[in-house]
Amino acid sequence: MRKLVLAALIAAAPAQAQYQTQKLSPDDVLIASSASDWQTLDPSDTLVMTLPRGQVVIRLAPEFAPNSVANIKRLVHSGYFDKAAIVRSQDNFVVQWAQDPEPPDTKGWAEFERNRTNSFLPLKDRDTYAAEAGFDNGFAAASDGRREWLAHCYGVVGVGRDNAPDSGSGIELYAVTGQAPRALDRNMTVTGRVVKGMEFLSALPRGTGELGFYETASERTPILTVKLAADLPPAERPKLEWLKTGSPTFAAYVEARRNRGGPFYVHPAGAIDICSITPPVRAIGP
Amino acid sequence: MRKLVLAALIAAAPAQAQYQTQKLSPDDVLIASSASDWQTLDPSDTLVMTLPRGQVVIRLAPEFAPNSVANIKRLVHSGYFDKAAIVRSQDNFVVQWAQDPEPPDTKGWAEFERNRTNSFLPLKDRDTYAAEAGFDNGFAAASDGRREWLAHCYGVVGVGRDNAPDSGSGIELYAVTGQAPRALDRNMTVTGRVVKGMEFLSALPRGTGELGFYETASERTPILTVKLAADLPPAERPKLEWLKTGSPTFAAYVEARRNRGGPFYVHPAGAIDICSITPPVRAIGP
Repeated sequence: MRKLVLAALIAAAPAQAQYQTQKLSPDDVLIASSASDWQTLDPSDTLVMTLPRGQVVIRLAPEFAPNSVANIKRLVHSGYFDKAAIVRSQDNFVVQWAQDPEPPDTKGWAEFERNRTNSFLPLKDRDTYAAEAGFDNGFAAASDGRREWLAHCYGVVGVGRDNAPDSGSGIELYAVTGQAPRALDRNMTVTGRVVKGMEFLSALPRGTGELGFYETASERTPILTVKLAADLPPAERPKLEWLKTGSPTFAAYVEARRNRGGPFYVHPAGAIDICSITPPVRAIGP
Repeated sequence: MRKLVLAALIAAAPAQAQYQTQKLSPDDVLIASSASDWQTLDPSDTLVMTLPRGQVVIRLAPEFAPNSVANIKRLVHSGYFDKAAIVRSQDNFVVQWAQDPEPPDTKGWAEFERNRTNSFLPLKDRDTYAAEAGFDNGFAAASDGRREWLAHCYGVVGVGRDNAPDSGSGIELYAVTGQAPRALDRNMTVTGRVVKGMEFLSALPRGTGELGFYETASERTPILTVKLAADLPPAERPKLEWLKTGSPTFAAYVEARRNRGGPFYVHPAGAIDICSITPPVRAIGP
């Protein structure tokens, strides 16, 4: 009953006005969403990384980093990551994985940004780092009005590199585990984001070496396998869908997070940072 | 030699101009600092929380939350926290500690903000959440020009509460372990920040219950002791000092983080979020 009432409210009014009168919580907004607000993960752009404690599911972003994503898929098919390990965990920054020792990696792609497209939807909120900040196709993104890039929010997966901008091919990947290191925006190739199992990366013990590298092999977490979801039998693929960030439901969700209702909040913030909104992902089906 | 040259540079020029011509790294700036830029932790406002894996050192903020901090010290002296445990670890949000089961806690203090003082030094950067954001006496803070509050950045320690704003007395504390939950600003009493040992909180396994609470007692991390540093023998007190956030060296440090030099950064950000600057703390002495 509650679900139906909320769905009717969302259908009846623009997201913001409806929220301000009804004070839906972010969870209320998701409960009231319709099936068409959600999009199933594309198995041909989804990685399943199996660690000893659980599975990490990564949604790739080929539309932002076509060459890097294609090469990561090649590496997956070659079995490269099945012999890799988590080699670094730096508190409030990143975890990183690669084969160890790392093979030479001198030539890759500097896919840091692209032309701004109509699928980029900026929020109205001020952003510290960019003229515009918002979401594009399920990813946090920012823009200067002409160019567009993926933002380094919690859970983002990028390509490690050396000083040369095009020196990273994907043999060394990182995931953000701390406060959004937005200074990396436009300086690193972002290839996707973790959509499930982030806790299997973020709660790893921190490395005690420089930059959080583990000092001994026994501290490293072995990667058991990395598979492209499309290569798994259908029954073993992650059954996940993500909320379309161009949907009215997502706009209502952002607004509900911008001005938290309920009895707890004395001072609703009235604003929200893109990296304080993790675009919702949920299990499909009954 | 390098250290002396950098010190001379810092002395000779305003922080920003000097950085822009010399491109000091943040580490360079700290190396070039002088002893008078640093302030020793006050043992009467420092907590030492001992967990099975290591020590967590918390700098209290009585100037922002006098009643809450005084009560936390009373609880420490009563041995309350020596029978407490980490009861919650929610990914990308907080860890929380209390006795379990928690004693009733219906009356505390709503010390969410104070009048803006001259010790608050705003940055020039845009902030998403507040008209002004900067630092005050070693803590990240924000202001509307009239009132001032501590910002919920990584490592901040605050008082858990129920819906009533003054319902938290300090028997349940939390530390931020993820993306800065700035929506909590002006809604929670912030009582300090972790200045050492954050990794012993942030890398704890995430709880699998609602809101990241642990579901069984065996998952909780026991707190062995919490002591006020002043109550420890001098030899056992943490020997730490923090960089004065009103010093020219801190201004140079912020600028070096705002525009990262060196060969790696293709696009220096030109801006910095307060929660992307952890006010530096270092060991004292040889």
